[in-house]
Amino acid sequence: MTDRYAPLREIARTLGVDAVALVPGSNFTRIMGHAFLSFERPLLVVVPVEGPPAAIVPNLELASWDEVGFEGETFDWRDQTGHAPAFAALAAHMPLRSLAVEGQVMRVFVHHALVQAMPGLRVVDAEREISGLRLCKTPDEIAALEQAIRISEAALEEVLQDLKAGQSEKDVERRLVQAMFGHGAEALAFTPIVAAGANSAQPHASARADYAIRPGDALLFDFGAVYGGLTADITRTVFVGHAPDEAQQVYATVLAANRKGHEVAGPGVSAHDVDDAVTGVLEASPFAEYIRTKTGHGLGREVHEAPYIMRGNHQLLQPGMVFTDEPGLYLLGRVGVRIEDDILITGDGCRSLTTFPKELRIVG
Amino acid sequence: MTDRYAPLREIARTLGVDAVALVPGSNFTRIMGHAFLSFERPLLVVVPVEGPPAAIVPNLELASWDEVGFEGETFDWRDQTGHAPAFAALAAHMPLRSLAVEGQVMRVFVHHALVQAMPGLRVVDAEREISGLRLCKTPDEIAALEQAIRISEAALEEVLQDLKAGQSEKDVERRLVQAMFGHGAEALAFTPIVAAGANSAQPHASARADYAIRPGDALLFDFGAVYGGLTADITRTVFVGHAPDEAQQVYATVLAANRKGHEVAGPGVSAHDVDDAVTGVLEASPFAEYIRTKTGHGLGREVHEAPYIMRGNHQLLQPGMVFTDEPGLYLLGRVGVRIEDDILITGDGCRSLTTFPKELRIVG
Repeated sequence: MTDRYAPLREIARTLGVDAVALVPGSNFTRIMGHAFLSFERPLLVVVPVEGPPAAIVPNLELASWDEVGFEGETFDWRDQTGHAPAFAALAAHMPLRSLAVEGQVMRVFVHHALVQAMPGLRVVDAEREISGLRLCKTPDEIAALEQAIRISEAALEEVLQDLKAGQSEKDVERRLVQAMFGHGAEALAFTPIVAAGANSAQPHASARADYAIRPGDALLFDFGAVYGGLTADITRTVFVGHAPDEAQQVYATVLAANRKGHEVAGPGVSAHDVDDAVTGVLEASPFAEYIRTKTGHGLGREVHEAPYIMRGNHQLLQPGMVFTDEPGLYLLGRVGVRIEDDILITGDGCRSLTTFPKELRIVG
Repeated sequence: MTDRYAPLREIARTLGVDAVALVPGSNFTRIMGHAFLSFERPLLVVVPVEGPPAAIVPNLELASWDEVGFEGETFDWRDQTGHAPAFAALAAHMPLRSLAVEGQVMRVFVHHALVQAMPGLRVVDAEREISGLRLCKTPDEIAALEQAIRISEAALEEVLQDLKAGQSEKDVERRLVQAMFGHGAEALAFTPIVAAGANSAQPHASARADYAIRPGDALLFDFGAVYGGLTADITRTVFVGHAPDEAQQVYATVLAANRKGHEVAGPGVSAHDVDDAVTGVLEASPFAEYIRTKTGHGLGREVHEAPYIMRGNHQLLQPGMVFTDEPGLYLLGRVGVRIEDDILITGDGCRSLTTFPKELRIVG
């Protein structure tokens, strides 16, 4: 019988710790087969190097917990008594001196509850190792991601067909969101960025209700649907009515950089090398001073995950990895352009899961 | 000139710590006036008991950061070099021996970065105190919340008008989501729960694509729109075609408990007393064994925040506090009913911000 915890036990062994803890989130969902909400109620699975796991579960989640088919002891707790007794019971059942956790998911109050129940506990941040188990996507995950991307692309095309100067960023955002759900999105990967004119130069801009889109504006869409738990993340920048000369040059530069990413990405190439090649195109242009970000990030159950496509990350790309290729140039107060594709590493190169056209497009 | 950090400095003084840290989230948005994304990039504001604050900000957020009008030193960092140098610079600029943090918001990797830069740092979980600053809503916040509720209620009515047996939970969820955005939602407070038949007895059920809603099913909606950064949270349970006898009795019991919450809530009443009265109605019924949750939780910029309406919480309700009154009964494998209103404490009692009718409703 397969032990679904084998990779976690291996991480614990490698790091020299007694156990690994999982809290609700992407790693938890993938390994346990069920998603849980967290909020103010701690829920935790602890997997030791050997032997059965143990869990802390809020009492009101026990019915859903039954579906997990959990192999070990579960310590439940009720709102009325608080979670401290469950942590104490876990500590008595499975005394630990050291524990690896997901540092970007576990919150400080859970960390404190663990340390309070097990004084002297050494907590090691194993985010990289634990989330690393999700690096290479399964065929099912790739199929779900492609569907998330198809939904996103269909929604964007629908919105672009109806786009007119005078609409607000908020109007356009609302249409995009409705179109994503209409095409079958389960959820939004994040609140879409719909940024026009000078707002397009803010990498994480919010859509404004009080700005009417004008002719000559760049209009940047950064958005994605979720399907089957996998998140699309796509950026396209279009122009309304016409594209000013400078904006056209910026666009051509970013597009060349984006295409460079597709050229160089492949198995055995490092994340560093991809960023170096893509960013190199921007640096060799007259717009080098307007670079603000690395080339991209991994994509899967989280919209930002490993591998991070940046200089200094010498991690080698492997078949099944998926990441964004999203160079951009941000001329503050004037115009921003970003073009973002989702790229899958294959056995002999890469394949763009994103298929939405990238040629400069005038809308409205 | 007003010091926006005065309440944080007061918390630091009371707790006997050197400073308070804020990370992106609701407290940050309310105090700094701007929302930031977090993901894998730490962003942090540190407010000492006296003197100017300091911040750690990812370089790519600096343009947005300019809009904050920050009063102190900002240490920015780039993906290429990582965040450790910025934490070291902060430590040199503002050496701290103790720091209060938001334990339910700050993640372990930020905690680790702080402790690494300031060895021996005592980190105190001040979630209750810091989030406590959001307990009493401002008139603007109440107006935004009422608008979020109006949007949510209009969307539910639209969906109920079109509801038919044979639709899947997923179909209904999609319509509900599109209707919320159509009526002006900025975002979803959370992925809606649309749970039919036996699924209605799971407090945190997920909508299924493969279950066709049947005559006699309970259909539970737990959902909410976000407007102006405030989150609605409403539950209504309706019946499709007809309501079986047992389900009607369960419904009447839950409705009586919900109404008891409206009766007893008011300024100077404790959260404990509200839960005790509401849960007391359920306990006195033939369905006492099917209680699974406390009465409710505070509501505002977060969908779950203080005050938690539960026995043992002797916090006194004050004018401006908003919380959910959401008793439920969960007969596993058979039927679940929950009725949830959003209640505002006023000067002399309470007012339900939720106005959607609660009489047993047959749809389809």
